[in-house]
Amino acid sequence: MKIAIAQLNYHIGHFKNNLKVMLEAIEQAKKESADLILFGELASCGYPPRDFLEFEDFIQKSNTTIDALCAASEDIAIVVGAPSVNPVPEGKDLYNSAYFLHEKEIKHVQHKCLLPTYDVFDEYRYFEPATAFKLVPFKGKKIALTICEDIWNIGNENPLYTTCPLDEYEKDQPDLILNLSASPFSFGHIDERREIVRANSVRYKIPLFYANHAGAQTELIFDGGSLVANSKGVIVDELKLFEEDIRYYDLETVEATTKDNIPRHDKMENIRKALVLGIRDYFAKLGLKKAILGLSGGIDSALVTVLAAQALGKENVKAVLMPSQFSSDHSITDSIELVNNLGIDHNIIEIQSIYDQFMGQLQALFEDRPFNVAEENLQSRSRGVLLMAISNKLGHILLNTSNKSELAVGYGTLYGDMCGGLSVIGDLYKTEVFELCRHLNKEGEVIPENIITKPPSAELRPNQKDSDSLPDYDILDSILFEYIENRKGPKEIIEMGHDAQLVERTLGLVNRNEFKRYQTAPVLRISTKAFGMGRRLPIVAKYLN
Amino acid sequence: MKIAIAQLNYHIGHFKNNLKVMLEAIEQAKKESADLILFGELASCGYPPRDFLEFEDFIQKSNTTIDALCAASEDIAIVVGAPSVNPVPEGKDLYNSAYFLHEKEIKHVQHKCLLPTYDVFDEYRYFEPATAFKLVPFKGKKIALTICEDIWNIGNENPLYTTCPLDEYEKDQPDLILNLSASPFSFGHIDERREIVRANSVRYKIPLFYANHAGAQTELIFDGGSLVANSKGVIVDELKLFEEDIRYYDLETVEATTKDNIPRHDKMENIRKALVLGIRDYFAKLGLKKAILGLSGGIDSALVTVLAAQALGKENVKAVLMPSQFSSDHSITDSIELVNNLGIDHNIIEIQSIYDQFMGQLQALFEDRPFNVAEENLQSRSRGVLLMAISNKLGHILLNTSNKSELAVGYGTLYGDMCGGLSVIGDLYKTEVFELCRHLNKEGEVIPENIITKPPSAELRPNQKDSDSLPDYDILDSILFEYIENRKGPKEIIEMGHDAQLVERTLGLVNRNEFKRYQTAPVLRISTKAFGMGRRLPIVAKYLN
Repeated sequence: MKIAIAQLNYHIGHFKNNLKVMLEAIEQAKKESADLILFGELASCGYPPRDFLEFEDFIQKSNTTIDALCAASEDIAIVVGAPSVNPVPEGKDLYNSAYFLHEKEIKHVQHKCLLPTYDVFDEYRYFEPATAFKLVPFKGKKIALTICEDIWNIGNENPLYTTCPLDEYEKDQPDLILNLSASPFSFGHIDERREIVRANSVRYKIPLFYANHAGAQTELIFDGGSLVANSKGVIVDELKLFEEDIRYYDLETVEATTKDNIPRHDKMENIRKALVLGIRDYFAKLGLKKAILGLSGGIDSALVTVLAAQALGKENVKAVLMPSQFSSDHSITDSIELVNNLGIDHNIIEIQSIYDQFMGQLQALFEDRPFNVAEENLQSRSRGVLLMAISNKLGHILLNTSNKSELAVGYGTLYGDMCGGLSVIGDLYKTEVFELCRHLNKEGEVIPENIITKPPSAELRPNQKDSDSLPDYDILDSILFEYIENRKGPKEIIEMGHDAQLVERTLGLVNRNEFKRYQTAPVLRISTKAFGMGRRLPIVAKYLN
Repeated sequence: MKIAIAQLNYHIGHFKNNLKVMLEAIEQAKKESADLILFGELASCGYPPRDFLEFEDFIQKSNTTIDALCAASEDIAIVVGAPSVNPVPEGKDLYNSAYFLHEKEIKHVQHKCLLPTYDVFDEYRYFEPATAFKLVPFKGKKIALTICEDIWNIGNENPLYTTCPLDEYEKDQPDLILNLSASPFSFGHIDERREIVRANSVRYKIPLFYANHAGAQTELIFDGGSLVANSKGVIVDELKLFEEDIRYYDLETVEATTKDNIPRHDKMENIRKALVLGIRDYFAKLGLKKAILGLSGGIDSALVTVLAAQALGKENVKAVLMPSQFSSDHSITDSIELVNNLGIDHNIIEIQSIYDQFMGQLQALFEDRPFNVAEENLQSRSRGVLLMAISNKLGHILLNTSNKSELAVGYGTLYGDMCGGLSVIGDLYKTEVFELCRHLNKEGEVIPENIITKPPSAELRPNQKDSDSLPDYDILDSILFEYIENRKGPKEIIEMGHDAQLVERTLGLVNRNEFKRYQTAPVLRISTKAFGMGRRLPIVAKYLN
């Protein structure tokens, strides 16, 4: 049996596009004489469709896609993910299903059993879990259809679910597991995915074909890396990362393979590719081309500029330098060196006269109150207004340049430097920002060395340094990581050796600044716990603050 | 048996406060010789605790609260909601539980079975559903403990769940149902709540005591209205709406009641009370006192000003008038009439010179491109910067004044009039804004009549009217309601008699403007489908747009 894995870039709600890319893949698979082609989870509508699933019209359009695919299934089996309607009134109205199409018929519809409802996932919001499991007979083999999470409940000390779908299938002796996935990138997830696929093929002693999506959907970056494992747990192949790919496998050859075939990956290079894909698909899928961003002379905006140029092309990125009286000389010279290195367009707009005008109009209200965060934010917000005005006038989309450390502790100005349509590095701690910049400079200096080595500063008051109000970033980031990624409490973090007062102050800052994060751009997710849809906290709470 | 219902205002994560208010209620109940006191769902930690539940430290603090309540249970039974740890590794780590405390012991811990995971609810994100149901013997009665949603699966044509907890209890013949709730306000929900409580008491032929929370948690307004129904389905009592309340019931008297005792409520008055409570608790629970807002002369900001003054006191609200060259004379005169009616402080700041300064600095980039949305937004954003500067300098919190109709179609400026810490009327369609203003003026004119009757305008270009770019609000709102609240598709809405082109344009606008709503303030929820946490849509999608 010859099996095709189609790892495609879907677009949520764009049924026409999704059908087109799948029909093209089917055509190609037919030419290659494949017996079966495997697509990803909810491929008809894209993943995650979120509350669009509540619209009957949306489900009907998905059904129409399935009908069209069915019509193309005369001489090839098509396995594709789509929502299906729960025929009984009890329970949620939909299932998250795998359709097995062949001979122009829907041969079977298998529902997903394990519905991830944590972090960025909301599947039980929409779907009823499967309670029935039926193998599909095809060309003398019995096929177990599984959807993403269905294979992830094994091998955990603390399993999330009380059932394992493949345990249910096992009594009927399946010959083959197919898995339709939509599994987003986080930098450790590629290794986990290989190991879970391997663990399933070993436990059930049958080969497993796993098809992922490739492409970004707002904050989620689906990184491809689809997999084939044989019944001895050999990883026979891994499809490309971060791009579409279609590959063909002869089942006998798969079974005869004795050695893993897994490319080595570099963590920082994967993060770079993920962010570039995240930017590229945000623009491409919204029908946009050009980006604008404010270049401060600091490392965060420098990094975003490089990533934007890589994603969109240097001709599509405009940098705006907006110095004030508090800006250092090097903030301009370093920025100009960077834009010259990249060959991108830039403009310089002084904000002093705007700031003065605001202060003049506020004089009667401010009286002689001392300079404080109001004046600092006023500078940042004047820059935000300028960038948005250019964005509105020229049709460039503003990229946000906040990093995860500053988003965490609220070291940023709402409606100022927190403006932007997409947060590119909002899931990178400051220490990771440095690491990624070093990585980008490996093959020759792109980001001027001085941008990387000078002490970070917001330059909103005379001689300001981040270190005036924050601890060293390696200490801060380590506390934040324990709190945000590992959900450790103050006591546990202090027991790790951190200063008690600093820990309490830091966690208090994180919780008090939830209101700022609520109003910022979606953050490209590269970790297991990004700000945004995967981290949901009340604003009006009193816990650790 | 004498039963106390304690309808309290909890504060999420504020364990000390929550324990204190419960202990005070217990003291009072003891004085009244109550046998049992009933609190709300997750009362130990407040509802919804959201991802704080993932912190072991948070759960430990909740457990400590339970221990302290247990110590107070020597001569009264205490029934209180709190998370409890799932003792087996399989499944989610927590249950959403009702603790039955008596004689200084935990007599029983009953878990919630039906876990709402839709709209604003995420319970399956955290909790494993109950599979065991055990009645609690107490003073010769067998008590069925249920938690909120547990009683809501009956009487629906399309039930969300495949089990009914009270059906499970029924075989053991319970004498009494207790329900611990955290059920947020929407304007139709008060009636639904009565009917579901009645339906349960009728179906199972036993009395039901239902305890809700009273108080707002960011966007969710818990409206109290706890209920007592007897075995014949008589609604014996309804506790106060929108405030704390403790009442006592003798079981025999409850059973002997033959007539409903339900106060009549007015929809608009309930919405007003809900919004006032929403503002008040946002400020009180964040430890804030003073609000600021921009007063445009239009109806939206006028309404928010009145509500803010009612919630915080007239001495705690500051209005800022920021006219431009496009502002009408009446925008100032009407606003001043309003602030005089309310007796609140106001300032006037002209934005023309700021706008000119921005335009001067942008001249080189804008060249002679025509006036467009960039210049319109620039005015709105200049106002946003001024308001935020005053907010930062004086410590007043900016209230957002966007309504649901404009949030829906993106008729607002991100980082401009969409600024603010809390969206007060973001869940009121424009037609409802008018209705609420009329209601507020019933006992005498508070909002000047001209503000209500003049044609709505953003006043961002000469002689601009909302009706230049939007249809009449009664038509627009009716299309939006079908799409947003009823999840109807374009075909169905057109079949209701709406213009096809207008419907398609409107739904396209709603979907294309998801990016703006993503970055706005939390919206006080008064309908069944508010923007924010209860409506989750992808930004980068291509569906109906």
